[in-house]
Formats: sequence, C-alpha cells, structure tokens
Amino acid sequence: MAEVSNKQVIFKDYISGFPTDADMYITTSTISLKVPEGSKAVLVKNLYLSCDPYMRPRMTYTTDSYVDSFKPGSVIEGYGVAKVLDSGHPNFSKGDLVWGFTSWEEYSLITSTEMLIKIPTTDVPLSYYTGILGMPGLTAYAGFYEICTPKKGEYVYVSAASGAVGQLVGQFAKLLGCYVVGSAGSKEKVDLLKNKFGFDEAFNYKEETDLVACLKRYFPEGIDIYFDNVGGKMLDAVLLNMRVHGRIAACGMISQYNLDKLEGVCNLINIIIKQVRMQGFVITSYYHLYPKYLEMVLPHIKEGKIVYVEDTVEGLESAPQALIGLFSGRNVGKQVVVVARE
Amino acid sequence: MAEVSNKQVIFKDYISGFPTDADMYITTSTISLKVPEGSKAVLVKNLYLSCDPYMRPRMTYTTDSYVDSFKPGSVIEGYGVAKVLDSGHPNFSKGDLVWGFTSWEEYSLITSTEMLIKIPTTDVPLSYYTGILGMPGLTAYAGFYEICTPKKGEYVYVSAASGAVGQLVGQFAKLLGCYVVGSAGSKEKVDLLKNKFGFDEAFNYKEETDLVACLKRYFPEGIDIYFDNVGGKMLDAVLLNMRVHGRIAACGMISQYNLDKLEGVCNLINIIIKQVRMQGFVITSYYHLYPKYLEMVLPHIKEGKIVYVEDTVEGLESAPQALIGLFSGRNVGKQVVVVARE
Repeated sequence: MAEVSNKQVIFKDYISGFPTDADMYITTSTISLKVPEGSKAVLVKNLYLSCDPYMRPRMTYTTDSYVDSFKPGSVIEGYGVAKVLDSGHPNFSKGDLVWGFTSWEEYSLITSTEMLIKIPTTDVPLSYYTGILGMPGLTAYAGFYEICTPKKGEYVYVSAASGAVGQLVGQFAKLLGCYVVGSAGSKEKVDLLKNKFGFDEAFNYKEETDLVACLKRYFPEGIDIYFDNVGGKMLDAVLLNMRVHGRIAACGMISQYNLDKLEGVCNLINIIIKQVRMQGFVITSYYHLYPKYLEMVLPHIKEGKIVYVEDTVEGLESAPQALIGLFSGRNVGKQVVVVARE
Repeated sequence: MAEVSNKQVIFKDYISGFPTDADMYITTSTISLKVPEGSKAVLVKNLYLSCDPYMRPRMTYTTDSYVDSFKPGSVIEGYGVAKVLDSGHPNFSKGDLVWGFTSWEEYSLITSTEMLIKIPTTDVPLSYYTGILGMPGLTAYAGFYEICTPKKGEYVYVSAASGAVGQLVGQFAKLLGCYVVGSAGSKEKVDLLKNKFGFDEAFNYKEETDLVACLKRYFPEGIDIYFDNVGGKMLDAVLLNMRVHGRIAACGMISQYNLDKLEGVCNLINIIIKQVRMQGFVITSYYHLYPKYLEMVLPHIKEGKIVYVEDTVEGLESAPQALIGLFSGRNVGKQVVVVARE
C-alpha cells in the first residue's frame, strides 16, 4: 500500500513556565491510509483540532494526573473532528465523521477507539464537535447541572467566561433563570458576554485591582455557584463572596498551569463558614451523559437559543501558536484549528 | 426575689494571634434565680462547660461567620450541660438537665432556648453531653456519615484525631470497616489513638518533616476520606495524597485560627485531577439528626464499643487556661470544665 505524506506537530520536550513556539515543531512523515491487517484501529483524516487548557499540564512530566504527559519527540494528542478513511473496527466505517481523541497531524491511525464518537448530525457546523457538541460542551453541561446542582434564581459566577466551556455555562444558567456574571480578559470578550451570550453582567478581571471588592459589587448578596476555570487569586476572592450552601465546580485552573510554584489559596476557611461544597471533576467520568446532552442542546442551537463563538485558525502550521495563545487569552471563544474542511 | 452571687468569665476585647490569660478575666456579679415574670427564658445552674476550637474565631471581630463574635466586656458563650432551676418555657421544667448554648458563669438566664436540648438519659456520664453526646459527637456523626459518604474498606485519615471530634470519627470509621489513620501532636495522644481508640495507625505530625511523604507512607494507595480538623499545611499535603473520587470533610481549621495572615493552600489542582469533593459544614445544619445519632451511639457507649476520653479541669477559674490550652494542643481528649457536679 502506497504511503502519503503526513504533516505533524511534534512535542519537543517537557517544559516549565509558558509554552513557546520552540516547544513544538512541524515535521512531515508518511502514513499508509489503510489500517493494518487484522487491526481494530481506525484511520482518519483530521479536519478540525481543538486547543484546550488541559493540554498545558501534559507538557510537563507527571505521573499523577488523569491524563498522561505528552511524549517528547511524539506527535501531540488532542480532541478533534475527523473523517474515517479506513476502519478495522465494527463501530466505524469509511466515510463516517467522528469526534474524540486524535493527534495533531493530517492523518491519524487511532488504535484507542474508546474515546471516538460517531457524529450523529451535520446540520450544524462540523467544528462544533470540538466545542459545544464535543468535550467542552459536555464539560459545561455535566459541570453545571451535575456538579453545581443549580436552582432557578441563584447567583452564578463564571470565570474565563468567553472560553469554550464558560460561554456555555453562562447560557445554561440563563436558560434556567439564574443571575449570571462572567469575567474575561478583554473589552472585546466582556462585550461578547453581555451582548452575545446574554450574561447579566460581565467584567474585565485585568482591570480590577481588588477582586474581592469587584465580586461584592456584582454579587451584593453573594455567589451561590462559582464555575471555576481559573483557580488562584480569583478562587481566593470568590471564597470570600460565597453564600451559605454555595457550590464551586472546579473545572480548570488555567491561572496555575504555567507557574513553577503554585499560588496559595488562603480563604478556604470560608468553605466551612459558608458550608460550601467544592467539587472537582474530569469529563471522562461523564461521557454517559452525552446522548442526553445532545438531546438538550441540539434543538437550542437550531432555534438560536444557545450561540457559540469559535476562534479558528487555518492550517496545522498555525496550531502551536493557537495553543500557546490560550494561555495569554489571545483567543476569543473556542480555539479551533482547521486542518482540512472535508 | 433575692439575688445570689454569680461568678463569670468575661471576654476582655478582640484579639489577634494566640489568646492568653489576659484576654479573659473572672468577675462576680449577682443574679436572681427566677426567670422574669412572663418571660419564656430558662434559668439554669451550669454544671459542665465545653472548650471548643470554634470559640477562637469568636474572639476576633467579624460579621462574616456563622456565629457572632464575642462581645467585649460580656460573659463568654459556649456549649455546656446545665440544670434547670426555673423555667418560663413550656418545654423545660425545674429539675431538667439540658445541654446546649449557655454561658461561662455559675448561673445563666437563657433567653434563646432553640439551642437547648433536654438530656434524655443519665446512665452515662453527664459531661458526655458536652462531647460525645453533644455538639462534637453530632459533628463527628454528620461529618463522617453525611459529608464523607463512607464505604466499607475505604482509607480514612483524621487530623487532630484525639480531639473531641476526631476520636469519634476514627471509631465510627473503624465500626464501618474502614482503614483509619490519625494524627496528633504528642506521643501520649498517638498511643491513645492506637491503643484506646483502635486506629490502625497514628503518627505525631510534629515529628514529621515531610507531611507529603509521611502520608504516602501511611496511605500507599492514597486517601479516600480526609476528615479535616486543622487545614493549612496538613490539608495541602493531603491534597497530594487523595484518591480518585475522594472526599474531604472540612470540619475545622484550627491551624489557622491564631494566624494574622492565613496560610495558602497550593495543591487545590488535585481536587480536579482526583475528582475530589471538599465540603464544609456547620453542625447547626444537622441538629435534626440528633435523635438518630443518639439511637446509634448510646448502645455503643454502653457496650463499650465506642470509648470517649475527656480532659477535665475543675472550677470556672480554670476555664480560660483550658480554652487557651486547646490551641497549643495541651488537652488530651475532649476539654471539659467542671463548674459544679450537680
């Protein structure tokens, strides 16, 4: 079987601090577009790749996380949308569109197919399966409904609120009849939160010198639910502003991922005083909710009741910069890399 | 109505840092042993008073806690066991024994009787109603069974484990078939944990230079449940040793109560990685469980399946020193002050 050329993004070596261009490089290898004889693997053409905050911890060596570190010298792994070119697996056939765990390259031979899901409908943008209809969407859904146990009328705060997960949490909370405030790192994002996603209020955390006072201004009655995507100083300020029996969904802590020395959170005593439940979660524990989630979200998307904003870059070559940009908040909305459109 | 003399412990003024002798003083006032005409108050003779860690935050001014700060120049409030001398309230009669919120004095006129509970049985030591049969007992019960949702065979770690609450949590966990390790601050307490309370293992945290390594030694498989009475550095070390889907009951943070600047906890990212639920609670939310708790614990006490260790001092004059001693760990077991034995 003839091999074709296969452009790839290679992870160079373990890092500390902020990732840079130099930590990844583009190479071209070759690949056969057939799965090996007798294998249950799936051979896909990658269409859209997802840049996600959890990818940063994978760039540092650890044996103690829910997901393995990247391997130096190997292609970067991540979520994506792909088209099946050949399949040895009974669940997948040539021509199927799938989303799930793939690699940052033009073509991938996927041997671990447990994390691959067939795309049920294409009457929404296909790239949505890297975001609202993929892992980040399910994260927002499980995190908000299962972890936060929200009630109508409650006061909800979302950090990194214009990101892939945050924008959805805010909209889910509004649909339920909550009061929702979001924070983000630029005027453009704050405008998006208020004008496009329908948050009640939004603020630029970079312009606030006193986060505790800022949150008190937006939540004079306190916060019932905090959907935490950032950790660190923001979490510390939130703890001082929680209401009795409040809930904190610990979804991500992007403020800490590039630090060599983690910031200390000082106000945990408020977890006792306010009888707060803080719960961390990893989306792989909630995949069983995916069909239920789709059933809920697809009609909302089609009716325009939930909107989704993506920040797309073109070409695999752009992927390293796109991933790096996440950690300085350069993206506006969900960061997607277009490898091929079909 | 003639008045009698009434010795009292007065709270002097708000403090920072560790409390000292000079922050309380003994005075003698007078009191009528009758409730005022038409009042629904209860007039009691105080028998046993309880020294509890949560009393320290009340010595600093705050409006942001679940319990009010003490009033400078006023008698100290706290849990105790008392005998009713006169009552304007239909639920209480002369001669009743009660436990609940009273004051550090010989006789108290209790106007807020919602926190007063009639003592159902006296075939156990009466002082137990400041501890195993009172607030700390209910705290251990609700904290362990409701907050920690324990399962047989799980790995349980308790800090301040020889204290009023900790010694019970350990014994409840053993009864359920868990593996239990406790920490305390002296050899005497460690011996107590192993030899009297039946913990599987115990260690003196003051002798450990590396708490993370120490916990790894006692929990090579990790910790399923951490019952946290201390917060701070210990909590930080525990976070690195939690198992997937672990639970942390945030019951108290005595390591922080005397600090002007709270310690930062750096390892919260593990709440996400390990999908941990950390939940703070205040026992007033669980008073409805008291009858159920008594039903469980009384037979165990009578059969000797659960033991309880108290550290008693005699006389109201000893109360300030006894309270202060809590914060340096001077007490061995539950700290009780005997005001009168009947």
